[in-house]
Order: sequence, then structure tokens, then C-alpha cells
Amino acid sequence: MLENLKLGILGGGQLGAMIIRHAIDLGLNVAVMDKDMHAPCSHYTSSFSCADPMSYEAVLAFGKDLDAITIEKEAVNIDALRQLEKQGVKVFPAPDTIEIIQDKFTQKQFLQLHNIPVVPGEAIQSKNDLYKYENKLPRCLKKRRNGYDGYGVMILRTMADIKAAFDEPCVLEELVDIKQELSVIVARNEYGEVKCYDPVAMVFSEEKFVLDYQIAPAQTEEEILKKATILAGNIADALKLVGILAVEMFVTKDNKLLVNELAPRPHNSGHHTIEASITSQYEQLLRAILGLPLGDTGLRFRSLMMNILESNSLNSNKQEKLQHLLDMEGVHLHWYGKKGKRPGRKVGHITITDSTMENIVSKAETIRKILN
Amino acid sequence: MLENLKLGILGGGQLGAMIIRHAIDLGLNVAVMDKDMHAPCSHYTSSFSCADPMSYEAVLAFGKDLDAITIEKEAVNIDALRQLEKQGVKVFPAPDTIEIIQDKFTQKQFLQLHNIPVVPGEAIQSKNDLYKYENKLPRCLKKRRNGYDGYGVMILRTMADIKAAFDEPCVLEELVDIKQELSVIVARNEYGEVKCYDPVAMVFSEEKFVLDYQIAPAQTEEEILKKATILAGNIADALKLVGILAVEMFVTKDNKLLVNELAPRPHNSGHHTIEASITSQYEQLLRAILGLPLGDTGLRFRSLMMNILESNSLNSNKQEKLQHLLDMEGVHLHWYGKKGKRPGRKVGHITITDSTMENIVSKAETIRKILN
Repeated sequence: MLENLKLGILGGGQLGAMIIRHAIDLGLNVAVMDKDMHAPCSHYTSSFSCADPMSYEAVLAFGKDLDAITIEKEAVNIDALRQLEKQGVKVFPAPDTIEIIQDKFTQKQFLQLHNIPVVPGEAIQSKNDLYKYENKLPRCLKKRRNGYDGYGVMILRTMADIKAAFDEPCVLEELVDIKQELSVIVARNEYGEVKCYDPVAMVFSEEKFVLDYQIAPAQTEEEILKKATILAGNIADALKLVGILAVEMFVTKDNKLLVNELAPRPHNSGHHTIEASITSQYEQLLRAILGLPLGDTGLRFRSLMMNILESNSLNSNKQEKLQHLLDMEGVHLHWYGKKGKRPGRKVGHITITDSTMENIVSKAETIRKILN
Repeated sequence: MLENLKLGILGGGQLGAMIIRHAIDLGLNVAVMDKDMHAPCSHYTSSFSCADPMSYEAVLAFGKDLDAITIEKEAVNIDALRQLEKQGVKVFPAPDTIEIIQDKFTQKQFLQLHNIPVVPGEAIQSKNDLYKYENKLPRCLKKRRNGYDGYGVMILRTMADIKAAFDEPCVLEELVDIKQELSVIVARNEYGEVKCYDPVAMVFSEEKFVLDYQIAPAQTEEEILKKATILAGNIADALKLVGILAVEMFVTKDNKLLVNELAPRPHNSGHHTIEASITSQYEQLLRAILGLPLGDTGLRFRSLMMNILESNSLNSNKQEKLQHLLDMEGVHLHWYGKKGKRPGRKVGHITITDSTMENIVSKAETIRKILN
């Protein structure tokens, strides 16, 4: 049964650590691979491999004795995963799913093929291709691969921006006039059972493209929320997903939904499910990939999730600031214990739960003052 | 800060694994020692030492590079912990506290000294001492040390029972006429801050003395609950506790409270706090021993916690039974992933949360049928 099953995770960041948090509830044996020997997961497993999940040989060696393998980041070696599948290892999400999503242009083509509305965009080979768009700015330029947390995204407004642009395969997207960003986490198992979490509203910091805070449930017209949920379910079906998928969407000023990006793994926009939902996204992932019944996605509390980003002001008095947070009612701190320093990276998050959104927002304002 | 702190746990069972579950939320680096190389914790740390926590040398070697050390079982070497304290390691609960509680008779004397009502009992050196009680049966015989989960407890009713009794230092207790058993988990930190969880009602299986199920909050007169909470707080103060403590009590037929036993660590009667309370007992332990503010102990849901004991009938169709449990609404499975077999031991637990006790009890009955 579960105790004899060996699960591997490619990627050992905070998402992996939160998967382990919930793997403990099922008594699972979890191996993790990450190229950073100090990755958060490195502390929480007896089987940590320090190697690059993009390496064919490393992934093959890591997976050969596992029963099942999953991911907490998309930058993994697909060929090795396909080979492992042939050797009888269950790979969820499937290599095909990861491959489609790894490349932002392939992802967009897949969605269009399945009649899912997306942000219009074109493939760009290199910086040279951009000059012909000079009169069509502003546009949003995204690296086709390996972008995350705002790395690999830039807005082109002027000729100077083009000159400073990424010189590699990218997607150039129209800038959509949006009134809100939503995210829906959807789970699907091998038997085709599909469950969606309530859509959440995401607010991004303008300069950094990194999620600033997230509100669950999203305060939006019921009709839009319903459509967003249906869209997420359709995408999961189209992908024949086994696992969980975050579907990030734009709500345009004229109330249309456009899919922005997919992530076939636990996602920042689902952190709140640990405290606010009956089944966390991490438990749901484990249920989905282990052939277990999907859990209840019902929301138990209204919540707001904020990322904690590394900054000099945070570092100046961290202990006292975190103690202050730990002393606030209804405030749940998740501290990732990351080694080293790099301003701007995510080092933790906070989930605030309360019965009214008013109380939650007021606590969020207090927290922002504490952290800055 | 937290990420540079090394915490050690003596004992690597399910309680330790649930401590790690919550240590992940603080990004802590956790080392574990247990004499069973397959102990549940062995999977969830990069620093697992397979050695006996009763060994002076082993505990000293384990602790020398740690900042703080705690326990998930009482059977640990006190002298080594005292030595580690001298070397600057924070040991919480303090060696004095563990030493008092390790021995059920010393524990009783300590409580009596502090005017805490206890079950009357006497020290017994060996089986020979028991014969003079022949006319005072029935009584309850408990080994002074190393009893747990019903191991080390027996009821003496007849001369034949005395002949079959433990032949080692024991406590012989009067059999109290009780109407209910309660447990209160209390936390106290270095600054003397004390917080109690709501008293829970415990129902034990009659033959095995092992906790059958637990209900939170206990359905008892307000006055008794209040007294139980005060009692637990007083004991934490008397012990100058740093950490968490389970106080198991009897409510007698004439509504008196008698303390039965103490456990200075996370406890079976506090499992429900993971889903049902704002702060779990595991997070509370970490807060208490790391000098962080104690968390809110408020109960968010009514709950019932049931142990899952290993049995032939469970083993006969385990996968299907667990799948069935995972498919029930409001039912939270914790499966410990233990290796090997030993009928009667705890292999998991279930916490049922719901808005009414009626629904909860009805689900518990369904679960009992599934598991048997």
C-alpha cells in the first residue's frame, strides 16, 4: 500500500517542501532532486539528490527505483521522463503535458487548438524579429522557456526597450486591457475525475510581475467565476491531465476570460488551500497522482495570501518581524528557510483567514507595514 | 534566524513526523533519533540517527551540534540531556520535567506536593509486594517506567492476576469510579506565557487501554471544563514547563477531577488540533521551545479523532478501506506508513470535522464499519 510506494519530486523548492508536508499525512516515502544542495526540500527527505532536473542522465538515475514521479517546476528533462514511463514508472503530470506547458508558445497553440480563449501572441525567434513591431508597442515579451516569478517577462514600450529585449525565442503578446486576474486550481486523476477549487483573485506587483497578494474566493460576478471554473475543467480534460494544474486568466474590461498561463503543479495561487480549504492543493496532487479519490475542494474560510519577498528592510530585523506576524490572530506564517540571499525572491508567505474580507484586508495592511 | 537553527527530536514515531510536518512551515532544520531505522520520521529528514534515545553516548553525540532538542517520547537519557544543557543546547522540555514524568510514581508525588488531585496510589517494588493487597482488589497496576498505549498497565482483580502481574517497580492505584476521561493540552514558553486547548473527552477501549476515540470539545459541564483548564495551567507552571504537556484526567462520578497521567510532548489526544484548531499542537510545541509567541488555541470545528489500529481485518483489504475513507467528506486520514506488522499498534488516525456532533458520530460509525 502507500507505505511501500516511492514517490519522486523533480524540484526541491518550497512547493516541494509543502508536498512533503502533506506526504507525511499519507506515510509516503518521498525522494527529491534539485540542483541546489540547500533547496528547502533537502532537509525534509532521506533521499535528496543534488542534480539538475534538466539533465537526462540525472533524471533517469533518480527515477529508476521510483514507483511514481511528479514535478514542482516545469524545467525538467522530458526525454528522461518518457524513458522512465517506458520502464514502468508512473509520471504525472504526463511528459506530454509538461512538454506542452514548458514552452509558452506551444502552450498557447494547444489552447487555441482546443478553442480556449487566450491572449493573442506570436512566436519571436530573436531580438531582430522585434523591430518590425516598433509601431505596434506596447507589447509583452515572454521567454518561451524557463520564465518564472516575473523572470523572463518584460513590457516593450519604446525602441529602447526593444534594444534591451531578450535575444532568444519568445512570445510577443498583445497588452490586454484587464480588470482582474483570476486563477483556478484544477485536479484530475487517472479515472477522469475532475475537481476545481474556487477561483481566486490575484494582484501582481506592477514592476516585478510577481504575485503580490491573492484573495479567495475572488470577489467577481458569479457568471464569470462559473465560466472560469468550466474553462479550467475543459483544459484539464483537453490535456488528459493527471495531477493538478493552475490556470491563470485575465478578465478583460468587457468581461471576457482569456487564459494567460498554465502551470501543471502546485502553484503560488493555491497556497491558501492549506488553511482555507478542506483539502490542500498539495494533498490533492498526491491524491490525483496516486489514483486516490480527489478530496473536497470546498473553501472553509475567506482568505488572503501574501508572498514575503526578500528585501534589505526585511533582513534588517527579521526575527522581530516574524515574531510579530506569529503573534497576530488568524495569520499563518510559512517561512521557507532558504539559504543565501537574493533580494526579490520569495522567502515565505502568509495566509490570513477570517470571517470577513474587511478584517482580512485590515490585517494585510498591518502585515505590509510590519514587513516593510 | 529560524533557517540557521538546528532542532533535534528524540524519538522518530508518528508524533515526530507530525512535528516535522509543522517544522516545514517554519523552514526548520530537524534531526531525529530513533532506534528503529524504519521509524516514520526516517523518511522525512536528512539527519536521521538510528540509535537508542536511552543511550547516554548516543544522545550526547546526537545533540552536540544542535541548537535545541525536544522529545516525542519520555524514554530518553536524562543524564545526556543535562550534559547537553551544560554545553549550551536548549533542552525543552527540561530534563527535570522529563525525569519527573518518566516515572509514574515520582510524577504522582510531584503532583501531590503541588496540591494537584491525583488517583491515590502506592509504590510497589516487585510482585511480592502485591500479595498483601489481595483483599483490596480490584486495583490498577502500572509499570513506573516505559509504559505507553496500554503496554505496562493491567487490572488486578483476582489472586491469579497477581500471580501473572509485572514483577518490577510499579504503582498500584485505586480503581476510581469515573464517568469521563478528559485531556487538556497546555503549552508554556520560556517567558511564562501559558495557553490551554479546550478539554477533549477520551474514550478508551476496555481491553487494551488504548485510546479508542476522542471528542473535541468535551461535552461536559462548563464548570468542570473550566476547572480542568485551570488544573492544566497550574501543572505547567509548577513544572516550569517549556513545551507542551498533555494532562489526562478522570472526572469521578461525584464530579471531582483527578489527574491520571502527564505527557510532556505532543499527544494522541491532541491530534485533532491539526484540522480542528487554529494552531496545531505540533506548531505550538515549536513555538514554545523556540521562544516564539504561543499560537491561538481556539477550536474552529467540532471534531472526533479515532486511532486506526493494525488488525488482520484491516490488513486483508487495506487499500480499498483507506480509499473509502479518503472519499468521505470531512474525514481527514493520517496514515503513518509504518513498516512491519504488529496487531494492535497504531498505524494511523482519522480526524472527522463537521458542524454538528450528530453528523460526526454518524460518520465515525460508518468508519468503524469500514475499518472492521
